[in-house]
Amino acid sequence: MSRFPTAWRECVGTGRMELALRRDYQDSLALIQREIGFRHLRGHGLFSDGMGIHRPYVLGGERRVRHAFTYLDQVVDAYLELGIRPFLELGFMPSGLASGDQTVFWWGGNVTPPASHTEWADLIGATLRHLIARYGIDEVRGWPIEVWNEPNLPQFWQDADADAYHHLYEVSANAVKDVDAALQVGGPAISPGDDKWLETFAAFVSRHDVPIDFVSRHAYTSGPARHVPFGVHQSLAPASALLEQFALPRKQLAGTPLGGLPVHITEFNSSYRPDNPVHDTAFHAAYLAPVLAGGGDLCDSFAYWTFSDMFEEEGVPTALFHGGFGLLTHRQIKKPIFHLYAFLARLAPEFVSRGPDHLVTADDSGRVTILAWAPVDHTDAANSPATHHVLLSVPAPGPAVFLLRSSVDDERGNAWSAWREMGRPLAPSPRQVDMLREAAEPARVHRNVPVVDGRAEIEIVLARHEVTLLELTPVVDETPPWWDDSRLVSGDEQ
Amino acid sequence: MSRFPTAWRECVGTGRMELALRRDYQDSLALIQREIGFRHLRGHGLFSDGMGIHRPYVLGGERRVRHAFTYLDQVVDAYLELGIRPFLELGFMPSGLASGDQTVFWWGGNVTPPASHTEWADLIGATLRHLIARYGIDEVRGWPIEVWNEPNLPQFWQDADADAYHHLYEVSANAVKDVDAALQVGGPAISPGDDKWLETFAAFVSRHDVPIDFVSRHAYTSGPARHVPFGVHQSLAPASALLEQFALPRKQLAGTPLGGLPVHITEFNSSYRPDNPVHDTAFHAAYLAPVLAGGGDLCDSFAYWTFSDMFEEEGVPTALFHGGFGLLTHRQIKKPIFHLYAFLARLAPEFVSRGPDHLVTADDSGRVTILAWAPVDHTDAANSPATHHVLLSVPAPGPAVFLLRSSVDDERGNAWSAWREMGRPLAPSPRQVDMLREAAEPARVHRNVPVVDGRAEIEIVLARHEVTLLELTPVVDETPPWWDDSRLVSGDEQ
Amino acid sequence: MSRFPTAWRECVGTGRMELALRRDYQDSLALIQREIGFRHLRGHGLFSDGMGIHRPYVLGGERRVRHAFTYLDQVVDAYLELGIRPFLELGFMPSGLASGDQTVFWWGGNVTPPASHTEWADLIGATLRHLIARYGIDEVRGWPIEVWNEPNLPQFWQDADADAYHHLYEVSANAVKDVDAALQVGGPAISPGDDKWLETFAAFVSRHDVPIDFVSRHAYTSGPARHVPFGVHQSLAPASALLEQFALPRKQLAGTPLGGLPVHITEFNSSYRPDNPVHDTAFHAAYLAPVLAGGGDLCDSFAYWTFSDMFEEEGVPTALFHGGFGLLTHRQIKKPIFHLYAFLARLAPEFVSRGPDHLVTADDSGRVTILAWAPVDHTDAANSPATHHVLLSVPAPGPAVFLLRSSVDDERGNAWSAWREMGRPLAPSPRQVDMLREAAEPARVHRNVPVVDGRAEIEIVLARHEVTLLELTPVVDETPPWWDDSRLVSGDEQ
Amino acid sequence: MSRFPTAWRECVGTGRMELALRRDYQDSLALIQREIGFRHLRGHGLFSDGMGIHRPYVLGGERRVRHAFTYLDQVVDAYLELGIRPFLELGFMPSGLASGDQTVFWWGGNVTPPASHTEWADLIGATLRHLIARYGIDEVRGWPIEVWNEPNLPQFWQDADADAYHHLYEVSANAVKDVDAALQVGGPAISPGDDKWLETFAAFVSRHDVPIDFVSRHAYTSGPARHVPFGVHQSLAPASALLEQFALPRKQLAGTPLGGLPVHITEFNSSYRPDNPVHDTAFHAAYLAPVLAGGGDLCDSFAYWTFSDMFEEEGVPTALFHGGFGLLTHRQIKKPIFHLYAFLARLAPEFVSRGPDHLVTADDSGRVTILAWAPVDHTDAANSPATHHVLLSVPAPGPAVFLLRSSVDDERGNAWSAWREMGRPLAPSPRQVDMLREAAEPARVHRNVPVVDGRAEIEIVLARHEVTLLELTPVVDETPPWWDDSRLVSGDEQ
Repeated sequence: MSRFPTAWRECVGTGRMELALRRDYQDSLALIQREIGFRHLRGHGLFSDGMGIHRPYVLGGERRVRHAFTYLDQVVDAYLELGIRPFLELGFMPSGLASGDQTVFWWGGNVTPPASHTEWADLIGATLRHLIARYGIDEVRGWPIEVWNEPNLPQFWQDADADAYHHLYEVSANAVKDVDAALQVGGPAISPGDDKWLETFAAFVSRHDVPIDFVSRHAYTSGPARHVPFGVHQSLAPASALLEQFALPRKQLAGTPLGGLPVHITEFNSSYRPDNPVHDTAFHAAYLAPVLAGGGDLCDSFAYWTFSDMFEEEGVPTALFHGGFGLLTHRQIKKPIFHLYAFLARLAPEFVSRGPDHLVTADDSGRVTILAWAPVDHTDAANSPATHHVLLSVPAPGPAVFLLRSSVDDERGNAWSAWREMGRPLAPSPRQVDMLREAAEPARVHRNVPVVDGRAEIEIVLARHEVTLLELTPVVDETPPWWDDSRLVSGDEQ
Repeated sequence: MSRFPTAWRECVGTGRMELALRRDYQDSLALIQREIGFRHLRGHGLFSDGMGIHRPYVLGGERRVRHAFTYLDQVVDAYLELGIRPFLELGFMPSGLASGDQTVFWWGGNVTPPASHTEWADLIGATLRHLIARYGIDEVRGWPIEVWNEPNLPQFWQDADADAYHHLYEVSANAVKDVDAALQVGGPAISPGDDKWLETFAAFVSRHDVPIDFVSRHAYTSGPARHVPFGVHQSLAPASALLEQFALPRKQLAGTPLGGLPVHITEFNSSYRPDNPVHDTAFHAAYLAPVLAGGGDLCDSFAYWTFSDMFEEEGVPTALFHGGFGLLTHRQIKKPIFHLYAFLARLAPEFVSRGPDHLVTADDSGRVTILAWAPVDHTDAANSPATHHVLLSVPAPGPAVFLLRSSVDDERGNAWSAWREMGRPLAPSPRQVDMLREAAEPARVHRNVPVVDGRAEIEIVLARHEVTLLELTPVVDETPPWWDDSRLVSGDEQ
Repeated sequence: MSRFPTAWRECVGTGRMELALRRDYQDSLALIQREIGFRHLRGHGLFSDGMGIHRPYVLGGERRVRHAFTYLDQVVDAYLELGIRPFLELGFMPSGLASGDQTVFWWGGNVTPPASHTEWADLIGATLRHLIARYGIDEVRGWPIEVWNEPNLPQFWQDADADAYHHLYEVSANAVKDVDAALQVGGPAISPGDDKWLETFAAFVSRHDVPIDFVSRHAYTSGPARHVPFGVHQSLAPASALLEQFALPRKQLAGTPLGGLPVHITEFNSSYRPDNPVHDTAFHAAYLAPVLAGGGDLCDSFAYWTFSDMFEEEGVPTALFHGGFGLLTHRQIKKPIFHLYAFLARLAPEFVSRGPDHLVTADDSGRVTILAWAPVDHTDAANSPATHHVLLSVPAPGPAVFLLRSSVDDERGNAWSAWREMGRPLAPSPRQVDMLREAAEPARVHRNVPVVDGRAEIEIVLARHEVTLLELTPVVDETPPWWDDSRLVSGDEQ
Repeated sequence: MSRFPTAWRECVGTGRMELALRRDYQDSLALIQREIGFRHLRGHGLFSDGMGIHRPYVLGGERRVRHAFTYLDQVVDAYLELGIRPFLELGFMPSGLASGDQTVFWWGGNVTPPASHTEWADLIGATLRHLIARYGIDEVRGWPIEVWNEPNLPQFWQDADADAYHHLYEVSANAVKDVDAALQVGGPAISPGDDKWLETFAAFVSRHDVPIDFVSRHAYTSGPARHVPFGVHQSLAPASALLEQFALPRKQLAGTPLGGLPVHITEFNSSYRPDNPVHDTAFHAAYLAPVLAGGGDLCDSFAYWTFSDMFEEEGVPTALFHGGFGLLTHRQIKKPIFHLYAFLARLAPEFVSRGPDHLVTADDSGRVTILAWAPVDHTDAANSPATHHVLLSVPAPGPAVFLLRSSVDDERGNAWSAWREMGRPLAPSPRQVDMLREAAEPARVHRNVPVVDGRAEIEIVLARHEVTLLELTPVVDETPPWWDDSRLVSGDEQ
């Protein structure tokens, strides 16, 4: 047997770094780690003003910089306490070091080059040295370090200036390696849509022998946004378009000096908008199921953007469900896509078989797990077939297995659906939140399945947009030979 | 509207007092209090050796007694921290004060009269004075104090000697009142089957003007036990027999000086055996549903015996499911009867209507709750009808209500059923326990129900042995006028 | 006996409202509530952009406003969960409603009048109605509502325009009363230095019969700031100047229609700068001790500004100790001023006696508590006398009392002092933080004090800048008559 | 440098196994593990009736045995959750398998040989197989397995019959090895006073080639008990007698086939009585300090008997302080001996130097730790010299170190002393318990110590019975050059 790759859990996205100071964020991350367990966490804003790291001052008429880690320590302490590690993104520009005023997002990340590349390199060096002093060199060597975010988009990097990015990358990568040669640095973290950028970047780093340990890009499938107040509508490409984007870096770099490097898809989702309700639906989970099941063949990690609705790029969310990226809403209500990830986290580690609508894995204790999903039509969330059948014969130890099935679809395990039935309250009452939490739990059924000739026959009927997990565990029968349930309330008569 | 009586939550039973020192016990009680919320807790063993209160010693050749509250304080602190109060039972006899060697239960509660009634009265007085010093007189006045347990059975009181009990009661009641006249004392805590005892006791206390603040008895419906290893089979009387037992004290005492006193059913259950698997079934919840719905008409409290399987009268349980009394098993797996209580805890406070298979209540916010159950045949748990229909029209605020339904039956919300399918493992693995916890959650469905002319029509189809809760909450529609879910993935086309 | 007034605990200050979303903030508040227990919490920024409440949008070409309570609910839920209630401050101006661009603080609170007073009134009304729906009218009636902050300073209110403030106050007070006449509204929350403002304001509300339920102002004693990087030096007035400021509103309003209103000092401290290390010292606690002991005679509440160093008016703090206002640093290290408050929280409720260096209180159980402090010279923190003696004779039950003394001074209970000895690390390691926590604990000594003729003689020697609490509790001697400690290791010899 | 041996933390003793089900026990263990961190936990009663493992029954007229692990799983789960592992002791005899009625202790451990050695071997095998299935073979191989307890005393093993013990050992060791050859088995767990037993036992196992992986014995220094009610007085031998007992097994076995085996002192203490108040004193900590500092030279582990006062061999304790073995009392009040262990847990790992009154260790970060103690006279706890001086010169990095000193003596860090001053309340009130917790904290002082030529001069003055820890950490001075504390409140003047 071969291993089901763990690329799906290597990394997950997050709103800007200082949001990690918040309790709702940490509560959500704790739940995510308990039920899913990601390895790394990546978001913007490490060097933005909200983190307060870069602090210029004047003494005796001379400009100096204090590097302050009051919040960074709180953030990273929280990460590690919750069993997750940073995937560091070097950016955006502290206002005291910026060469211009252009910002991105409601919270104002400055996207201009540094006024001084030396001061920028010092900032990187001081930050990494501090992290190593606090957490140890072995720990920090396990944190990938990515230079900037989506420099191929003018809203994220002034004029989308490739030469300026290459210079920034070179300065940054050297600053990292000056601290410790075994730290891992990479880029260019490009947005989809301008795929040539990666090739140009690869040519640059190869030509100048600039350090690089991994290559990164993003992947999304949504079309242009049609805005309504506090929301958007967008069409989606088929989910297979995500897999194509995951595959591209290895294809583009094959045969180049960067050919063998790890490839990290450091952001992916259907829509790139934090106000598209598609994120809240069962459709979304069923749409992404084949991506999660297959993505690990194509790259080393792919990071869902993002784990929590605690996210402010378009301002503070105005309703409990608002189309945010989160696996969880504020206050930790689980979306269907959360359950898809939680189902993956319960899969046994070794491949048994897979198909366009399922994945079967097992471990050496005899445990067999099946992830199955109803295929979706990406153009029409509501009108795909009402049911879909999957029939499987899986290897199992005799004489029987216990089967527990957990399901999420348009009705079940679907708090968004309940919230709509409640009248879409912007700010639900505590009692409503409790009911939504209950509505968010997957439907569960169980039974005893006989095993014949070392195999169990499993028929799965899936509802529209259903994602389901079946767990089969060996039965060791300890029923006492003298016990008869049929006599439960019949007492002494026989 | 009138209030649905809260007699069902006034008290619940527990295994012997020092079990409250245990973590599993406290974890269970915490869960019970969070999801149900009982007012008082009653169990045996306050004065038994395990609590270590009565400690004779000899000094200078003279017998003295130290009263030690090391464990009592830990127990009562834990109760109050969890929001529940003691219903004190004065018994059994400390071995250092006993007149004989007869014991009851695996753990050896001594059931003989005191060797010295003075020393017994001192023990009561010292204990109550200590509790008052620690918790305050107002607090302790809210704790009923019951004299002994089931003195009408020879295994609980040597020879079931009524005169000896009357003497014990008189000494005890006076000892209580000597501490504070407003403390509440009562008895005789008799077992069913010898109903005359109550009349005799009432005559005694009336004749001798002995203090009494409440009257208590027990109620069970099981027949004789047919033992198998680690279990029993018993027949059951109809559930209505419990209601008849609840009603008896008021009937018997009507017109006597004890006529107006509160009546506490300080123990009730179907089977009185802690090894009868009927306690673990959905049948048991459906069987008791009409008792919980109707018992409050007949008495002031009726205490389910007991809240947890952490219970040792027949020894340490040998399997996770073993027919224990608990609403919860060890490790807090919820039984169907737990859910029946949790459903009651979620009922609105005011009666709307009721019938043989349902109870409808409401509050003044427009919330309406319906408890419904499938009527059961007490002689045959497995073969009652497969479905049962209830059709209700309930008052509701327009234009619609959100309905959340939670169900427990032979398959759903039924960990015992899953455990049987697993092969009844005596000591399940942690992963099995997790699956049992999931299998124990009620099945939940929800929908939006239109309200026409101030009423909602609700049809409820119940499965065999089902107990179900329907919660209807008013819908305030905040859906934005510009939003259209049908355009979710159709983007810019219209 | 008369009661020691609780004005000192009625309210405490906090950094801007959305900081309450943070875990460090909530951890600090939890500790504060556990060991001190304030009643209300007041800070800026309710309507600033970070809370995301006022959300204008355009639909069909028309401007509308959505009121969104995503964060407000999280904040107030957290407060109430921790047993503290909002003291609401209406301000600053949402950028979408502002008439100008002027902001205050690093985080940019807009301080211009509303572009539309109607929309401002709607904002207040919608917010209060939401709070009442969520928390209940009885609860919200207990939350004072203050209009704006320090309008007499041009940095807090454009041009310190009194007429514009009076108009804002009138619109706001009416908006509050339109929601519910029993809500409590007040102002003008003025800064010290321009004391006439209060009289003008009082005249305005009296003349126009504007609703007003309480009067508020602030109090500080520091002189002008001499800035150094990341810090300031300031001189201080004597602490008695604070008491004079507390007393002023009652004096100014005596005989006016506002004469009998409650007076709230909604901010006070020595220095008004969040980067003045005086806040971190034992000097500061000793300096404020007579203010806390005496302030309750002069006003209804006086709110220490602020409970936590999680505070960003001058940017993100760059060092663990940075002269912040907090009773606690980030990560909950207790400052001497924390202990002063914690000592007050342990005082018995009834006055026995007081003097310029002490306060004695008692309760009816015989418990006596003494707060004592070394008088300080406000011009010279380091050179005040090395010791100060207090000799007291206090009433106590015989034959003896147990005395526990807790002390904080320049060395003891003083993490700042330890931090300086460590070399003032900007970002201490976890082990250093642990040592600072230990260094922050008060020094404690205890002894048995004989009681003669119903009195105990207590001599207290105080070190420089010491604040100390002495707790005397009655001794009930339960030592067994047969026990002799002197034989502990002498075994069988006698 | 060489390592300071960790034998002192390899194991600690506990009351009988089912006490681990209790919350107070688990709370204490959690605290112990957080602040000390032992590796293994050893106590009696694995097979006694309270654990409910051995459960004979009759089916079809035939005797059978069910092995039930309901409580064992709860106990071991709790251990592992708290980071500690079992040191299994095979005993005492389940009543259903015992050949006689003789019991030991208030709780009645049966000390007679098995009625059937086959059934005894089955019990061992079933238990170990269950533990391996639940926790994994690698885990269980790390748990030493000791056969019985103190078989050389007639109260622990009927007639102290050596031949019967040898037979039991052989059957037990073979039962262990039949499950897995890599499990570690040993004995004979003898009490001091009959030192020949070990030689006889060693000869037996050598002659018969019985499996043995380690050798164990106990060590105590108290003389005969002179009883008073609820207490004893005993004389003590000098503490060096403990070290002599630790050393004996290696000496006795040198040159025999058992010569190289690990030696575990599976119990040690001064007094072997759970009602000797010497355990509660600072004398006790100072008495044992040289034993903990030196014991690791002589054996592989020495287990303090026991970690908690939750212990019932002489019945339920009747007072908070009662002379129990615990490092902690009920409700987790720290005794001086707790602090001695906590001080050891904070020691750096490498030896620097040691003497009769101190131990100096360091790590490679420049951290230096000093444990020092006042030498005690074992015959007279109260009259040893009032002070003791230690002068040390220790290596340290320049230019300065931060020194934090923690002290425990007859007054400081001494809850027992405070409790006596309170009048020795049997059942202290919650407020008294809080004050005792505060009184139990070590006194702490700190200062900055200059380093000259790579060394710091440290003078330590110890009070009577003092045990003290000094922690020296390197100072990296980050004080800003522009900062001057002397200007704190002098503001703008210079």
